[in-house]
Amino acid sequence: MDTWLLSRMQELKDLQGLIGLATWDQETYLPSKAGPARAQQLSTLQGLHHERLVDPRLGEALSKASTAPGLTEDEQAMVAVLQREREREVRVPAALVRALAEAQSHGLHAWREARKERRFARFQPALQRLLSLRREQADAYGHDGERYDALLEGYEPGMRVSRLTPVLTALREQLVPMVGKLTGTGKRPRPVFDGRRFDKDAQWRFTLKLLEDIGFDLEAGRQDLSIHPFTGGTHALDVRLTTHVDESNPLSAIFSTIHEAGHGLFEQGFAPELHRTPLAASPSMGLHESQSRLWENQVGRGWPFWEHYFPLLRDSFPEALKGVDLEDFLAVVNEVRPSLIRTESDEVTYNLHIAVRYELELLLLRDALPLDDVPAAWNERMERYLGVTPPDDTQGVLQDIHWAWGELGYFPTYSLGNLYAASLYRVAGRELPDLDAQLRQGKMLSLRDWLRERVHRHGFRLPAEERMRVVTGQGLTDADFLAHLHTKYGALYGVTL
Amino acid sequence: MDTWLLSRMQELKDLQGLIGLATWDQETYLPSKAGPARAQQLSTLQGLHHERLVDPRLGEALSKASTAPGLTEDEQAMVAVLQREREREVRVPAALVRALAEAQSHGLHAWREARKERRFARFQPALQRLLSLRREQADAYGHDGERYDALLEGYEPGMRVSRLTPVLTALREQLVPMVGKLTGTGKRPRPVFDGRRFDKDAQWRFTLKLLEDIGFDLEAGRQDLSIHPFTGGTHALDVRLTTHVDESNPLSAIFSTIHEAGHGLFEQGFAPELHRTPLAASPSMGLHESQSRLWENQVGRGWPFWEHYFPLLRDSFPEALKGVDLEDFLAVVNEVRPSLIRTESDEVTYNLHIAVRYELELLLLRDALPLDDVPAAWNERMERYLGVTPPDDTQGVLQDIHWAWGELGYFPTYSLGNLYAASLYRVAGRELPDLDAQLRQGKMLSLRDWLRERVHRHGFRLPAEERMRVVTGQGLTDADFLAHLHTKYGALYGVTL
Repeated sequence: MDTWLLSRMQELKDLQGLIGLATWDQETYLPSKAGPARAQQLSTLQGLHHERLVDPRLGEALSKASTAPGLTEDEQAMVAVLQREREREVRVPAALVRALAEAQSHGLHAWREARKERRFARFQPALQRLLSLRREQADAYGHDGERYDALLEGYEPGMRVSRLTPVLTALREQLVPMVGKLTGTGKRPRPVFDGRRFDKDAQWRFTLKLLEDIGFDLEAGRQDLSIHPFTGGTHALDVRLTTHVDESNPLSAIFSTIHEAGHGLFEQGFAPELHRTPLAASPSMGLHESQSRLWENQVGRGWPFWEHYFPLLRDSFPEALKGVDLEDFLAVVNEVRPSLIRTESDEVTYNLHIAVRYELELLLLRDALPLDDVPAAWNERMERYLGVTPPDDTQGVLQDIHWAWGELGYFPTYSLGNLYAASLYRVAGRELPDLDAQLRQGKMLSLRDWLRERVHRHGFRLPAEERMRVVTGQGLTDADFLAHLHTKYGALYGVTL
Repeated sequence: MDTWLLSRMQELKDLQGLIGLATWDQETYLPSKAGPARAQQLSTLQGLHHERLVDPRLGEALSKASTAPGLTEDEQAMVAVLQREREREVRVPAALVRALAEAQSHGLHAWREARKERRFARFQPALQRLLSLRREQADAYGHDGERYDALLEGYEPGMRVSRLTPVLTALREQLVPMVGKLTGTGKRPRPVFDGRRFDKDAQWRFTLKLLEDIGFDLEAGRQDLSIHPFTGGTHALDVRLTTHVDESNPLSAIFSTIHEAGHGLFEQGFAPELHRTPLAASPSMGLHESQSRLWENQVGRGWPFWEHYFPLLRDSFPEALKGVDLEDFLAVVNEVRPSLIRTESDEVTYNLHIAVRYELELLLLRDALPLDDVPAAWNERMERYLGVTPPDDTQGVLQDIHWAWGELGYFPTYSLGNLYAASLYRVAGRELPDLDAQLRQGKMLSLRDWLRERVHRHGFRLPAEERMRVVTGQGLTDADFLAHLHTKYGALYGVTL
């Protein structure tokens, strides 16, 4: 490939890495008074990234390269991925970019105030403005009549509403009666953590042990603390996880570490020849999420895993876990209970929370739901799908930060992550026949290596669903996920699902 | 001022801040395998900073602004400072910049190897190359026949060899006999730390207490650990100190914290109206160093300071300091002993180490000393000025990293720091008549505020020596520094100096 084009690709990737560093630092070590200064530094970096991306010389070099003979398959993919990203960025007028940035900052503020007042109406004018700008942006990107597609493309390249809706609708229709059956059993776990205290240092050490066993390379990454756990970093050799430690409940730190480690393994796994190129990235947010969900749910909430780790956990907290046995513990870890808050929900009800959001977002972008009616529409769906009704907007429509800065189109990637995770895990189980036996001994490296070989090392060589087809023989499906729930929760709750 | 020019100034400052972040992170939290990736990210950032600085449009905007009516005094200074920086950068051809970067990387490697082999000859070819490039660079910058001036200007704008040499020579001629008199007394402190162990956490807590008392704002900055202590950060509200904790000796952490806090207070002290402009900077490395030296030596090695802190130190390390009294402690803290290594030397001998380096650098840039002769010239001067001879080159000419990447012209700024610190402290003592009494109570905020008012808040409004003239009524002089040594060490060693 042309050396100028390659050096521009590397420069763009370095700038993304530096944006990653400045963001990570903002959430971990930034002194409290430096918030506004950091926002300016980030805005300068993002401005430079934008300027380099829309540079007409890059456009020319990419279009020349896209028809040049002699490019390797990887080089062709690099050119195609960057070209697509560039074309999206070019289509949005600078004035709209500025208006959006301003509306986002205003939206975040209004959302925080609205949460305090527990009133959607306080946030509504800001959301109105964001929504109208997002519609404008979607139209600028271009679409075939379904605006949502244009935004979804930013998170899940290649996915379309026409493909997604039938799958998520069918899933919802399976889940609603399933939740009913499970809660109908009346089974509730013993509240074994209530009133106990779990030493924070011991929790931290336990999470580091987990990272080591999972095969997250702590010489090519690190773990720190932050209020909201996330995965960031600057490069495949510099991947940064954060976790959150809660003295009254060790599950928060344990499951956020496992979840973020799943993301982190993806980032660490890109083949070295992809580093500093547009291919050193996940092809979609959904596929990225599939890695965190697979480790968190398929592995980390499973029996084999805890057969090994529960004795170690008891050694770490001999006082707090006195009298608690593995069965008690697993019942807590896998309790199914319809709740108001998405981030606290279980494997079975989680996708119903997503259904609520996805359906409302679709209507909003189609101009088919007046903003005045959003809280009622939210509450009505929560009641219909989960059987619970938020007592106020803060526990309802105002709970997530996504809409606060106008992020529409992101939520379904969480469900895609759940579905992809189940499909990948099914195939992993077939190709690694002794996987459960390995997990029972705390051995997770062959699963990591399988994922690395099949998914991670390829980065953005193929779109997410095509990658899934290569690995599992099929694209998006809810069958594996539903089979996983049937088997696991049928046994746990003693019912046929 | 023109809004385009102002936004370019802010962008440059943001990029400098981000270079600061990436560098700080490299020395504190960067995973070990990410070194090469970080070097590339830094090089990308530095390349962008260079590109923006030499941009001809910036040159035009600056020259237009430099003659524009209606600019405030601060705005005029901003334009002048940035214009000077830009003109220097423009004068160095891109090919020379690349050749220097390569020679620096090669030089660092050769220096490390040479240190292992304890042989200057291993480093000599790399130094030869660096030296010839630095000569070329100095000629590109331009000078009046003294090449050293062109490099010195990069660290100490406005300073010249013709002004500096007489002062440093006279200082050396005073110091050599002074060291002789002090060591001639045969007085040696009791080795009170030998074989004791100082808990690292307790050391860390002690340094944080010091930072708080000194008035370093920990909401606009932080302290972390690194191998070599330094001060960095991204903004006046995000100043980052590092320290180094040695379990066998608490003085390392204590004095590096006090030293770096001095640098940090300067950075935190810039007036808010200077933030994100070229004036949010020290006018010279020497004036910056004067702040760290003043706190470390004038305050931190003084009697009043330890009258307050020694009891607290004893409370922190009751076991390790059993049987040690204030007099023992101060004797250790202020021991004068000619030694081989600059960074371990005391207040009296320190500037003789600088004299050795400054004199050799001058000869090298004048082409008046063949590289073959450098180790001998080093050793001869060490013997003549300090009465010690390095047993090998690693403890001699290879000890400092500066020449390893061709940094010539920096060393004298350390001596300038010492001289400026003494002059500032003399005036502070006159204008804050109860300063010693305050220090005896651990009260350091009025000194901090005095320095902030007189020095810090002005940033780069005036060149260093002009700032000194405004504050002390005179420019560069060794009189205050020598008076400080006479009084303090005369009393401590019981001799007339």
